[in-house]
Amino acid sequence: METFFRYNWIVREQWYTWCADLPPEELLRQRTGGAGSILKTFFHVIDVEWSWLQLLQGKPDEAEDFAHYQTLGAVRDLDRKLHLDVELFVRAWEPSMEKRAYIDRRTDGHVELAAWGEIVRHVIAHEIHHMGQLSVWARELGEEPVSANVIGKRLIQPD
Amino acid sequence: METFFRYNWIVREQWYTWCADLPPEELLRQRTGGAGSILKTFFHVIDVEWSWLQLLQGKPDEAEDFAHYQTLGAVRDLDRKLHLDVELFVRAWEPSMEKRAYIDRRTDGHVELAAWGEIVRHVIAHEIHHMGQLSVWARELGEEPVSANVIGKRLIQPD
Repeated sequence: METFFRYNWIVREQWYTWCADLPPEELLRQRTGGAGSILKTFFHVIDVEWSWLQLLQGKPDEAEDFAHYQTLGAVRDLDRKLHLDVELFVRAWEPSMEKRAYIDRRTDGHVELAAWGEIVRHVIAHEIHHMGQLSVWARELGEEPVSANVIGKRLIQPD
Repeated sequence: METFFRYNWIVREQWYTWCADLPPEELLRQRTGGAGSILKTFFHVIDVEWSWLQLLQGKPDEAEDFAHYQTLGAVRDLDRKLHLDVELFVRAWEPSMEKRAYIDRRTDGHVELAAWGEIVRHVIAHEIHHMGQLSVWARELGEEPVSANVIGKRLIQPD
C-alpha cells in the first residue's frame, strides 16, 4: 500500500514543480472537469487524502476552506502540514487492517459499512484519477504533462 | 493487488456502458490529451495491461493495430479475449512476486531492472490515470462521467 502512496507523493511534487512554471492566473482559471481549477484540484486531493485517514482513526477532520489557499505556496504549505499525519498512518499500515470495518454514517441517516482496505485504495485511486485530469488540462495549455509512470521511480528495489 | 484490478475492470465496464449511449462518431473524434480519442484510449489501456503481464511471463506480446478496432464492439471483443490471460495472471499473483526482477531491454541497448511489483502497479495506475482523462472529456461533452469511487463497489467484505 505504501508504494502507491509514495508514488502519488512523488508525482504530486513533480506537478507542483510543473505548476511553478505556469503564470499564476492559470492555476486558478476555471476549467472543465476535475475540481474546477488546477489549484483547487490539488487542494481537493490533499484534503481527501488527509480527511479519510483521519476518519479511519476516529480523529477530527475539519474541512479547510479553499478560499484561504489561493496560491501554490499556500497549498504546498497545507500539504506539508497534513502530510505529517498522512505519512504516520501510511507507514503504520498493516495487512491485518484490510478488512477492518469503517461505519460510514451518511447525512441522510443511512449507514454503510466499508473496509479500511477499500478506503485506503479509494484515497490512492482518487489522486491518480485527478492527476489524469490535470494531464488533459496540461495538453490544452500546450504543455507536456508530468509522467504517470510508476516504473523508473525506484519505488521497489528488485532482487 | 487483485482488488485494484477488479476495481479497474468494474469501472471499465461502466465506461463501456457510458460509451454505448454516445453517438459513435464521438468515440473516434480527436481530442486533446489521452490516447487522442475515447476509443483509442480504451484500446491503449487494454493493450498496455495485457502486454506488460505477457512480458512478465516471458510470453509474446504482439502489438495489435488500432486500425482494426474502430468500433466499441470490436474493442470490447478484444478486451474479452485478452482478459482471459490477464485474469489468470492477476489471480495467481502472490506477495513473493513483488521484488522479482524484470529486465527491461530498451531499443537503444540500454538495460533497466524493474520489480514486478512496480510493473503491476504501473498497469493499475495507468488505467486509473486514463479514466481520469475520460472524465474531463465527458464533462466537455456535457455528460456526467463514470464515478471513480473505490468505496461502494463491494470489493472487500468488511469484518
